[in-house]
Amino acid sequence: MYIGRVTGTVVATIKHEAFHGRKLLIVDRLDTNGNPTGEYDICVDVVQAGVGDRVLVIDEGNGARQILRRKVAPVRAVIVGVVDDVELAA
Amino acid sequence: MYIGRVTGTVVATIKHEAFHGRKLLIVDRLDTNGNPTGEYDICVDVVQAGVGDRVLVIDEGNGARQILRRKVAPVRAVIVGVVDDVELAA
Amino acid sequence: MYIGRVTGTVVATIKHEAFHGRKLLIVDRLDTNGNPTGEYDICVDVVQAGVGDRVLVIDEGNGARQILRRKVAPVRAVIVGVVDDVELAA
Amino acid sequence: MYIGRVTGTVVATIKHEAFHGRKLLIVDRLDTNGNPTGEYDICVDVVQAGVGDRVLVIDEGNGARQILRRKVAPVRAVIVGVVDDVELAA
Amino acid sequence: MYIGRVTGTVVATIKHEAFHGRKLLIVDRLDTNGNPTGEYDICVDVVQAGVGDRVLVIDEGNGARQILRRKVAPVRAVIVGVVDDVELAA
Repeated sequence: MYIGRVTGTVVATIKHEAFHGRKLLIVDRLDTNGNPTGEYDICVDVVQAGVGDRVLVIDEGNGARQILRRKVAPVRAVIVGVVDDVELAA
Repeated sequence: MYIGRVTGTVVATIKHEAFHGRKLLIVDRLDTNGNPTGEYDICVDVVQAGVGDRVLVIDEGNGARQILRRKVAPVRAVIVGVVDDVELAA
Repeated sequence: MYIGRVTGTVVATIKHEAFHGRKLLIVDRLDTNGNPTGEYDICVDVVQAGVGDRVLVIDEGNGARQILRRKVAPVRAVIVGVVDDVELAA
Repeated sequence: MYIGRVTGTVVATIKHEAFHGRKLLIVDRLDTNGNPTGEYDICVDVVQAGVGDRVLVIDEGNGARQILRRKVAPVRAVIVGVVDDVELAA
Repeated sequence: MYIGRVTGTVVATIKHEAFHGRKLLIVDRLDTNGNPTGEYDICVDVVQAGVGDRVLVIDEGNGARQILRRKVAPVRAVIVGVVDDVELAA
């Protein structure tokens, strides 16, 4: 998993039913200091995260499907939760 | 998933039946500003995307097979849908 | 697997029960000389590792779930053990 | 999948029966302009590709096993076909 | 798969039984010219490879478990064989 920041949304024409009613969010991958790394994932959201939120992303298909509680879902990255705090050793 | 741009096609001699009648498209991976990152995938197309289209790509084998509705298909990347709009936070 | 160093903790609001009671640790990926590579994973801990510990991380979802002894767990990276010694050829 | 060029062969002592009688080829990953990217995979060949051939590589284990028509095969990358033509948008 | 060089060993306290009696080796990933790329994996060894040996590594969890002939093993990288020869096209 990695820490990301929701920076936008994607509207796409997708026929697969696993996406019906799901918001697709652009999530920038952050480094441990909270800066964007330049990498991103288009994530399915299950926690009602919004633009600007710092989130925890699972970037593995089988785990992502489990979060969605669907055996069949063509996804790789899902927002698992909202990050409340990051504590780094001094 | 990531956002990509279809930039070409590949013609290849493949014997596996999962590829019969499927178009193989070259998809450049875009960054969140819409610029090519230099990475690409050869994708199977299920949405009739054409060269120049901005598309959503699932880059995970099990999910890709589910989009194709085949249990057995030697693929990793499949075009899931056509991107209509990307909204980035200001 | 790779060798990492626990550098912090993440507190997040996650509803999935696989995370209940689990500590989420920030683990910096180290190179073979013990220096951070700039990459990290948010890992679930099963060995009571603490900040500063040098650990062994499995970064593959199916293997990670096996360490947790759960079939269903949306994780990709798990701390497998604490590193006692690294011996490099001279 | 990606486009690669067969640049050599590997001879190795491997006991697993999935490799018996299989040629192991070094395949350089090419960019969309046909230049090597510096990355490579050691691939199992099922299409009788030879050194110099431009090939299509599936780089995902489950898909690779399906190409080999074996449930059990410790492989990640398999040559799926020989590339006849690549057409890039002008 | 990739070609690597065994450069050291790791001693770690791991409770999972899949690791009992298994040596953990540090394997530097080599490029096709035999030079280290800076990347490495901590690999489980099944071929009695030693420090200095040039080896073939499978870096995919499901394939790695098959080499170990275990359904349950939290591993991602396993040494498949010892490399006897690499022949590159002139």
